[in-house]
Amino acid sequence: MEEIKVFCPATIANVSCGFDVLGLALDSVGDEMTVRKTNEKGISITKIIGQDLPLETTKNVSGVAGLAFLEKSDYQGGFLIEINKKIKPGSGIGSSAASSAGAVWAMNELLGKPFSNLELVQFAMQGEKLASDVAHADNVAPAIYGGFTLVRSYAPLDIVPIPTPSELFATVIHPQIEIKTSDSRKILKTNITLEKGIQQWGNVGGLIAGLFKTDYELIGRSLQDHIVEPIRSILIPGFDAIKTNAIEAGALGCGISGSGPSIFALSKGRDIAERVAESMKATYSSIGLPFDIHVSKVNTEGVKRIA
Amino acid sequence: MEEIKVFCPATIANVSCGFDVLGLALDSVGDEMTVRKTNEKGISITKIIGQDLPLETTKNVSGVAGLAFLEKSDYQGGFLIEINKKIKPGSGIGSSAASSAGAVWAMNELLGKPFSNLELVQFAMQGEKLASDVAHADNVAPAIYGGFTLVRSYAPLDIVPIPTPSELFATVIHPQIEIKTSDSRKILKTNITLEKGIQQWGNVGGLIAGLFKTDYELIGRSLQDHIVEPIRSILIPGFDAIKTNAIEAGALGCGISGSGPSIFALSKGRDIAERVAESMKATYSSIGLPFDIHVSKVNTEGVKRIA
Repeated sequence: MEEIKVFCPATIANVSCGFDVLGLALDSVGDEMTVRKTNEKGISITKIIGQDLPLETTKNVSGVAGLAFLEKSDYQGGFLIEINKKIKPGSGIGSSAASSAGAVWAMNELLGKPFSNLELVQFAMQGEKLASDVAHADNVAPAIYGGFTLVRSYAPLDIVPIPTPSELFATVIHPQIEIKTSDSRKILKTNITLEKGIQQWGNVGGLIAGLFKTDYELIGRSLQDHIVEPIRSILIPGFDAIKTNAIEAGALGCGISGSGPSIFALSKGRDIAERVAESMKATYSSIGLPFDIHVSKVNTEGVKRIA
Repeated sequence: MEEIKVFCPATIANVSCGFDVLGLALDSVGDEMTVRKTNEKGISITKIIGQDLPLETTKNVSGVAGLAFLEKSDYQGGFLIEINKKIKPGSGIGSSAASSAGAVWAMNELLGKPFSNLELVQFAMQGEKLASDVAHADNVAPAIYGGFTLVRSYAPLDIVPIPTPSELFATVIHPQIEIKTSDSRKILKTNITLEKGIQQWGNVGGLIAGLFKTDYELIGRSLQDHIVEPIRSILIPGFDAIKTNAIEAGALGCGISGSGPSIFALSKGRDIAERVAESMKATYSSIGLPFDIHVSKVNTEGVKRIA
């Protein structure tokens, strides 16, 4: 195989209670990427459609992730990358992760899968480091593994795939405002009370158990974040109204996607997820804030070949 | 049925990463309790064998738990309780929880099970409140449900039973020193860093996933406590040596049982758990500290009828 075209899923990190450890992949929101083998060493980004992003390898997240891949590979050639960028950078649904994960997953396929998913995550994390100064894995892990993933530990890196109930749908609304990832991290407090910590790890345990048991009610009860959401939501206009209305429309839970500004809700079944989307649209329309909105099944495959 | 005799399991709360939320029940360590219906209203503790504990109903944890039960019941009679107390109070393996849970479970059986397990936990928590001023559920929940339990939330109370891999064994050593539960709570810090919080909820997620997947290695990697153990272990002589040697002997993980001073280890299979017991015995013998030691399968039934 000389060339591959892949779908690179958008992802929701944190998933309310799981700050920095949990993430999930979306099924119908993502980039497309074509990767081709070349005899010339190194990585060349030949074309980016849809967004104004740097073509220079060391300034592009897929280039940097690809270089990390090449450094550990004994392959003597290189790769050409073309990106059809459908996820807006800065939206909070893993735009950089999709490009980083997609590039290394595609390269691995083209070389006959020399690397494990865990190794691919490690390469893709270098792209994340370029994008946000932190080599976090909570978006690239679900992008590569699919479904829900838990980053149990960073040192050593330990990724745990978690089962995805088949009727789980996400609704994601992206208000057209800009929040810098660095700002949304800066406003977090470095200390939390032990009491809130206990609530948080109770909910992480509950969410993981709910996913294993396919217990939608338990999943819903566990989608709570007493630590990060109260602070970060200040930066997102209308957050409380969106959340209240989404829950009223039947969502299991609702929270900030990654560092925002996108807001996600999880629902049982597509019908409820669509109803939640209508309620979110109405809420932002009433305050006159432009938005993009998506309804998607939770993707259980991660990056996948489409041609 | 007029009379019932029950086994009331000892329990390990916290289980390293799950401070205040996780617990498990033991199979071969516990009290025996005989509960009999009587026409006279109220609860009478008629006899306590093995330990010097108050017979007065309002000063005995099983009495207080029983009164909480009676208050919600439409039963017009009362109960007589006889306790064969085999778990030493203050050992850190849920002595008060065994008595509280055993009493209300037995009463529920005698009346044809009018109450759910969740309600029984709520009654038993009143016994815990008498014992330690805090109505915690992380011992009474596994005592009543059996196996591993997660207290996802206290308000409202939400108990999640977690599956128990069949080859999981506990080794518990009880050094003969006294630590007051109130002291072991007092030395905890009320604030933790967000960074340590993230590690902790990553490990709680990993442990729950490991229990669902029957992945002993993942269970072992997740049995880490970066928050409470470093502080509480200061009060337990030889803790670091016991832990190091237990891991070397093959334990999946090792930590403080509840608020101590007992130390527990989990192992895959009885043989390894026995080897861990030998290493623990040798460690405390070498520093001249007297101890009790137990090896037990994880109990998956909770309180159970034995006659």
